[in-house]
Order: sequence, then structure tokens, then C-alpha cells
Amino acid sequence: MLFSTLIERKRDGHALEPGELRALLDGYLSGHLAEYQMSAFLMAVYFRGLDPLELAELTRAIIESGTRLDFSDGERPAVDKHSTGGVGDKVSLILAPLLAEAGLRVPMMSGRGLGHTGGTLDKLESIPGFDVRIGLDRFGDILADVGCAMIGQTPDIAPLDGRLYALRDVTGTVPAIPLIASSIISKKVAEGVSALVLDVKFGGGAFMTEPDDARDLARVMVRLAAAEGLTATALLTAMAAPLGRTVGNALEVAESIACLAGGGPADLREVTIELSAELMVAVGVEGDLPAARTRLGGLLDSGAALERFARLIERQGGEPRVVEHPDLLPAAALQRVMETSDAGVVQAIDARAVGLASVELGAGRRRVDDPVDPAVGFEFHIDVGDRIDRGQPLVTVHAADGHGAELALDRMAEAIRIGEDPEPVPPLILERIEATDRGRR
Amino acid sequence: MLFSTLIERKRDGHALEPGELRALLDGYLSGHLAEYQMSAFLMAVYFRGLDPLELAELTRAIIESGTRLDFSDGERPAVDKHSTGGVGDKVSLILAPLLAEAGLRVPMMSGRGLGHTGGTLDKLESIPGFDVRIGLDRFGDILADVGCAMIGQTPDIAPLDGRLYALRDVTGTVPAIPLIASSIISKKVAEGVSALVLDVKFGGGAFMTEPDDARDLARVMVRLAAAEGLTATALLTAMAAPLGRTVGNALEVAESIACLAGGGPADLREVTIELSAELMVAVGVEGDLPAARTRLGGLLDSGAALERFARLIERQGGEPRVVEHPDLLPAAALQRVMETSDAGVVQAIDARAVGLASVELGAGRRRVDDPVDPAVGFEFHIDVGDRIDRGQPLVTVHAADGHGAELALDRMAEAIRIGEDPEPVPPLILERIEATDRGRR
Repeated sequence: MLFSTLIERKRDGHALEPGELRALLDGYLSGHLAEYQMSAFLMAVYFRGLDPLELAELTRAIIESGTRLDFSDGERPAVDKHSTGGVGDKVSLILAPLLAEAGLRVPMMSGRGLGHTGGTLDKLESIPGFDVRIGLDRFGDILADVGCAMIGQTPDIAPLDGRLYALRDVTGTVPAIPLIASSIISKKVAEGVSALVLDVKFGGGAFMTEPDDARDLARVMVRLAAAEGLTATALLTAMAAPLGRTVGNALEVAESIACLAGGGPADLREVTIELSAELMVAVGVEGDLPAARTRLGGLLDSGAALERFARLIERQGGEPRVVEHPDLLPAAALQRVMETSDAGVVQAIDARAVGLASVELGAGRRRVDDPVDPAVGFEFHIDVGDRIDRGQPLVTVHAADGHGAELALDRMAEAIRIGEDPEPVPPLILERIEATDRGRR
Repeated sequence: MLFSTLIERKRDGHALEPGELRALLDGYLSGHLAEYQMSAFLMAVYFRGLDPLELAELTRAIIESGTRLDFSDGERPAVDKHSTGGVGDKVSLILAPLLAEAGLRVPMMSGRGLGHTGGTLDKLESIPGFDVRIGLDRFGDILADVGCAMIGQTPDIAPLDGRLYALRDVTGTVPAIPLIASSIISKKVAEGVSALVLDVKFGGGAFMTEPDDARDLARVMVRLAAAEGLTATALLTAMAAPLGRTVGNALEVAESIACLAGGGPADLREVTIELSAELMVAVGVEGDLPAARTRLGGLLDSGAALERFARLIERQGGEPRVVEHPDLLPAAALQRVMETSDAGVVQAIDARAVGLASVELGAGRRRVDDPVDPAVGFEFHIDVGDRIDRGQPLVTVHAADGHGAELALDRMAEAIRIGEDPEPVPPLILERIEATDRGRR
């Protein structure tokens, strides 16, 4: 079989037989198919897509390229959440200990900041001593003890995904729905969880700006997960403004701690509870979503979830006292407050602009090997829709130096729109998507 | 500038600024842009095309990657012909000495067989001793003495094209009009000729099956050539049946000799004279096409063009006596004649099937490093439209062994269609295309 013929067939809009696609992927793993052939194939997939059989075959090949964990041991059900990425999205830090406290196991594998969006690993590492690079053995031990554990992608699991992603990243082939879906679902299947909830974000601060695109991706992912025996639902959640009121690693940890203590911003609490409730119902520890919401709210308000987070931090080498003393988190050298010049209504806070400004401040990376400043970021004092008076504080910039602070204040002046009347905002949770096709192959 | 951003822009259907495209190509030449990025870019170009400014910039970058010859020395005008490739297409072997005899210079750079189509270099090499690997210096000397010289692609001229073509060949990105056009026109501009005629073939034996596609390619090429200061016209010529009556290297040389002596099949003579006449008018040595045709016919019928071919063969190390004694050409061990089983009309001879069968016989290559058998091939005794009687010879197979001969006879039984009534055939020369846009940038 000539690999170039397979590339041509995909280019011309034909579906490959599962065996042909597998031969191509095996050839890539063994070095018989060159990187330049795979990148051309991926670009053809960008334009032509993959049909459900091809998508399943790609997903399976990624799973089978590495270790597959197994939590079907009769112990507490294992679950995970995946977010397509946003600004101020610290849900994972709250959801993992919360669901552990609710009796589930959360073996969570997260990522780093990408583009203008933040990453769970970067946030966790702002906790002094917290180690996300523990091996799979320690990961398993902590999971057994605490009910949750949080690490990064390991080369043991789905290594083909790592190779494909690195190639896609430099060849303009990242935003292709079948490639995104297979990358996400393969890793979650290989993680061995029995239920998955997907937080698919839409709006200016998300990778998918349009709700229709987010819905398409969500549908492809829940169907693909179902075909691989993994129960999955998806929520389409708004990412026009940042989630919560903080953006920046340590600032987001502090806000997560507030939420785990029963406080924090309403939007963050709502999204976290809704995503968590999906998983509780999926694995049957609660019969319906309202009951799950009530129980989860109680676990936050009682401080039990926060206590669980402290145990997780301690087991992963971090300073557990941060949950009582957030001032133990790294603090920026400089804090500058931006105030309103006129009274009015907060019409919008542009999440993408805030995300890009946080990268400029040093909270994210411009290049893969850039260091991240854990302390810098933004602390908003207003929400979209708030009526404000002249001279009221809008946002505090946490910066390493004056130059960074000035630039960030300029960015915020553009990112925060004040006007006379409120503007329509999308619902925080637009839609819930489940696999309507119950058939499993 | 991030190269992946440029790939993304092309992927999304935007045109790159000339400077951006040049940076990408320079990055490729210098090794800063990886092969896998270029192949993804080429696949994006396959889907999105290039606008005229991008196409011109790509063409110029290819030209400037190597040496540019210059024949604007006040001596005889230099011209060349390019064919998009067909079966039995031996026009170059006749056109070069014919135009040299007519007072032009023909510095011809040709290719090898590709897929089911033959290559001028393979045909020339079937002449004992003929050397197509002479350097540019000897090429120039022979051109000055004989008025024509024939070599292969040299690494001195348009080396970027060689790299891009090798990459396209294994990544499914060959059949993209802007990539084909820039590859062809860049090399002809770098060759330093002042006029070019393009033989753009359509039909089952051509790379472009549909006349519309051939026309699109022809238009893009003549406009691109004009923009680079090279006068070009194109003829769309039929490639449903093989051109002439022979397919196979030495067999085609013998037929070329017959044509150069004033004989040979009518279709071959017509296509050769029409293409040659275009060039004579383009450089002004004849005022109009009818006058050029008359003069060229006379040069064939007088034997003058054949005499010129013998001089060319001698200067390139070959055995010049082949023009008088074609039996000095390599002959196949076995000749098998296929006869008709029924009377009827020859409705079609499938050029693609004949081309593929000739590759099976050994006249072409399955892989780049396969040896070519100069002697094998097909000699047809009939034309499409001929009425035939039972027992009449249709084709002689020249093969190296009995197995090859049997297989080839089977292929011919499928390739030659005999029926009761003649079927419509496309005109041999469908259309002439010139640059209607006279503007040069």
C-alpha cells in the first residue's frame, strides 16, 4: 500500500477503510510514514473531515498506542471532566476535591495554558511545592487515599496523541473537529474513567467562538465517547467574559479556595456544580440533577470540599495551609487599581483580550519553554451588567513591574466596555448535550 | 513571523502578502521551515489555490533559487516547448531539430516517464550512446553549433522546484494547478528562452482528463509566463488515444525519425507542426501560422530536419547512423502480433491503458530507481476510426519475454475497442490559448 495514495484518497473526499487508516497510523508510529506525509494528511482531514468509522479507528489507535488505566475494580466510580479551554476557568481545582468528597474518584489529567487560555497545571503549580509531575504509581496511591489526584499528560498514556498534537501545533491543523475530538476522547478512555463531562465553551474567549461550532464539537465528542463505552455528556457554557472574577494562576487558586469554602463568584459556583452534578448522575450516586446540585452545594458550604483540597495539596507536596491563609500564595510586586471615569453599566468584559493581556503580564506562555509568573493577573471588582458609579474600582492589576502594570491597565481600558444601558449576555449554560444514539458498537 | 500562522492564513482562504510567501519559501530553503510544514502548506494550497500575486511570487522564488540562463545575445531566438505528458508523445524529438533547422535555438530541458506517460529523456537514451546528462557548458556548446540540445533537469536551474516536487510526489499534492503552473513556468523562464509553447493534453491518457481542467491550467500558465516576460501560447491537444502509432522508447525514436524524414503518422506530424509554428510566429521568423506550417512541412519533407537530428545525436554521444538505419536501435527479443477476430470499426484505443501496459512491459518505471527497457512497447497498425477486416493485424507487442507478451496482449484486447459503427472522437487540436491580458507587471 502506498501511503501517498491514502493521502490522495482523503484529499479527494473519500473515507479510508479502518484497516487503511490504521496502516497509515501504524506506519507513522513505526517511522515508515514521514512527518511531512502525516501533516499533509492532517491538512486533508481539516478540509474533508473523518466519517464516524474513521474517527473511531483514529481514537482507538491513539488509545492503543499506550497504557490504558482501569478503575473498574468495584471501588468508587472514576470520573473526569474536560474543558475546551477558557479564561478564568478554574473549575477543575474545585470539581476534583468536591467530587472526591461526594464519594467519586477523580483521576484528573490536565494541561497547561494554551494561547490566551489558562491551564490547570500552571494554576496548581502556583501553590508552593505542589508537584504535578508525579508518576502514575504515586498518582494511583494519592487517588486511592484522597479520592482525587491531578497530573499532567504522561508519555505512558496515548503517546500517539502527543506526537500528533505537536505536529498539528506547527502545521495549522489544530482546529479540526475530528482531530480535537479524537485527541480528547482517546485520552479520557485511556484514563479508564467510567463517566466524563465535557465543558465545551463558546464565545469570544473560547476556541470555538460560535455556539453552532461548539455544539458540533460537543455532539461529535459525546457520540465518540459512547462508541468507546464511555458515558459522556456535554454542557455548552459561555466564555464571553472571564469565568469568575480572577485571571492569573495564584489569584485563581485563591478564588477556587473561596468557592470550595462556600463563597466565591456565583457563575463559577454554578458551572462547577452543574458539571459535577452531571457526573454524579452519570455514575448513579444521585438519581437526578436537582438532588446532586443540593448535595454538592452542601459539600461546598460545609467546608468539607475545602478540607479535601487541603489533603490533596499536602499529598502532592504542596503547602496545605494556603486553604486557610491564601496570603501564603505568591503575590505580585505591584498592584494597580483601575477606576471608572464615568458612571454607567458594565456592558462587556472581553475574555479573549483579558486572556491575551494575562499572557503579556507573564501568567501564560508565548513560547512553549517560557517561564510562567504565578503571581500576576487580574482581579475584577465588577461583573457584566453591574451599574457603577464614577470612581468605583473596576479591576486590580497584579504585575511584576510598572511597565507591565501600565500596559495591562491600557489593555483593561479596552477590554472592559462601559455604556449607558446593559447589553444582552448569553446564558451561562446554554445547552446540555448527551449521546442520543444509545447504540454502542 | 510564525510560519504556522502563514499556513493557517492560507488554510482559511486568505492570500499571503508576497513578502510573507517569500519568507515562507526562504525559510524552507534555509531549513527554518520544516518539510512537514511545507507539505501542510502545499495541501492547503491544493484546497485554497494561490491568487495571481502569490503565484507570481512562488514562481519568482523558484527561478531565483538557481541559475538563470540568458539567450538574449542577439543571436537566433531561443524557444522551448512543454507538454503536460501523454502516451506516445514523441513531439520533442522532432520539434527540437526541426526548429533548429528553421533558424531558432532550442535549449530543451525534458523529463523522464511519469506514471503511465513516457518521458523524452528515456526515449533519447534508447539511442545507443546518447547522453542526456551533459553539463550546462557542453549543453551551451552543442546548442551554439547545432541549434538545439536536449538535457534533463539540472540542479543548477530552479532547485527549489526539485525539492517541492519531490515533497509533492509523496504527500498527495501534485495535481494542484498553481503548483503545476509555477513548476513548469519557473523552469522555462530560468532556461532563458524568449518564447514558449505549451502542449496541454486532455482526455483519458492525460493527467487532466477534462478539457475544462486543461483549459484552466493552460490559461494560468500563459498568463503567468506573460507576467514573467515570457511569450507563451498553449494548444489543447487530444490524448484519448496514443499520439502516433508507437508507444515505447526505441519504437518512438524510430517513428520520430520517420516523421523527421517527411513520413510518419498524420496526427504526430500535425501536432508537431502546429506547436512549432506557434513558436516561429511568436519570435517573428514567420509572419503568420500558415506560412510557418508550409515552411516546417518543407523542412521535414526535404530531409533537412532529419539531418539536423543526426548532428544532434552525434554531438550528444549517440550513434547518428540510426537515422538511416533504425535497426541499430535496441530491438525486443519477442514480437507478437494481435489480429482482429471480427470485422468492424476501431472505436477507441485507450491511451491510459496502453501507457500502463507499457510500464508493465518495462518501458516505464513503477519506482523512481527502476531500470527502463528501451526496446519494449507497442506498434499499432490501425487508427481510431479505421474499418478493419477479420484477421487483420491490430498491434505488435515488443516484449522481453513470453510472460510479458501474453500479459500485454491481454491488456491490448481491453484497450482496443472494436464495434460496428465509428464513435465520435475529440478534435486533435481543440483550442489555442494565448495571454489575453497583455499587461506585464
